Amino acid sequence: MYTLFTANKTNSSWSLRPWMLLEQLCIPFEEKVLYFQPDKNLQKTDFLQAAPTAKMPALHHNGHIIWDSLAIVEYIAEDYPHVWADDKSARAWSRSACAEMHSAFTALRSQCSMNTHKFETLTALDTALKADLIRINQLWTEGLQRFGGDYLAGNTFTAADAFYAPVVIRLKHYGLLDYLSSAAKAYAERIYQLPGMQKWLSLAETETERPIRNA
Amino acid sequence: MYTLFTANKTNSSWSLRPWMLLEQLCIPFEEKVLYFQPDKNLQKTDFLQAAPTAKMPALHHNGHIIWDSLAIVEYIAEDYPHVWADDKSARAWSRSACAEMHSAFTALRSQCSMNTHKFETLTALDTALKADLIRINQLWTEGLQRFGGDYLAGNTFTAADAFYAPVVIRLKHYGLLDYLSSAAKAYAERIYQLPGMQKWLSLAETETERPIRNA
Repeated sequence: MYTLFTANKTNSSWSLRPWMLLEQLCIPFEEKVLYFQPDKNLQKTDFLQAAPTAKMPALHHNGHIIWDSLAIVEYIAEDYPHVWADDKSARAWSRSACAEMHSAFTALRSQCSMNTHKFETLTALDTALKADLIRINQLWTEGLQRFGGDYLAGNTFTAADAFYAPVVIRLKHYGLLDYLSSAAKAYAERIYQLPGMQKWLSLAETETERPIRNA
Repeated sequence: MYTLFTANKTNSSWSLRPWMLLEQLCIPFEEKVLYFQPDKNLQKTDFLQAAPTAKMPALHHNGHIIWDSLAIVEYIAEDYPHVWADDKSARAWSRSACAEMHSAFTALRSQCSMNTHKFETLTALDTALKADLIRINQLWTEGLQRFGGDYLAGNTFTAADAFYAPVVIRLKHYGLLDYLSSAAKAYAERIYQLPGMQKWLSLAETETERPIRNA
């Protein structure tokens, strides 16, 4: 069985991605949570047990260690191809969208760090943040229109949705949903209500460990 | 046939990755070069023809547009599985290593931007750059030892090597090879001498377009 190492549910946006994918697709896994610590050296020693980069998430399976969210998705897809859309075009689009999330949207990630407990409405948005929101709206609207389903790449939940799940939390909790088209806004609300997301948020609710950093 | 859109060979480290992969594996492709421009708005209009993010590289194939280097690699791997190592363990390791390159090593990327024309020896290295070099050495040494070949994931050139090809140029051109183990240093020299790399460097040599930015 897969063992997924994650960090605090309150803050670890990167952990949410593979966790939500496995949950929503009902793929069996066991989870081990390693919490952020005030002492970064102690945290590093702890996290190094799971990943050579000392960063979460990481997947352990049959002696293999996979230490990045995107690599985890591709590893799982070898066993469960429905991690990606069936349609080649939707799959190519999804992989591009996930890779874009993996390396870009720095304004959104730094200015609206994920915190499941926090709700505030941002009003004064800088140019970089606005540009990120414009791009996310363009991307989501395109996926929904082009592949014609309730999800980004068609009628089923795939890795593309899992990769943008933390963005859904950010947009909702920072009052930014009105920057989206009506289709993209409805999509965000739909993802927020999914059982996997609601389970993550409930578990985060009961988390007593202090969120050490906004990941 | 694949159409690969790339930017200036002098500077575009991201373009080198899929280009080198296709070249080294003798996979047929045509290339279209879109040059960086002093006027960023004009450049954006130009680059948007190829990619919705206005960033290079991008791959066009049978009506599909793939706009990120890692997504390009996975797209090509559907047609040419030897893009990744045959061995499952080496493949899982390679995907983690490529994803790590995709989102990390920010000190190396910002302080030692790729410029094929430039040779200088860095002497005063800050902590962040040293940490990146330590991690690269650890990663390369591990791959070479564990999979026992001349390349990072075994006996053949794969996407793992293509993803670290720009790092080889940076380390060699900034005089940083001595931070590596002897095995990792020999690996870097071997990659630098590969036909694909030498072809890229020769083409960069003849490039008259001014390098507008260090990509």
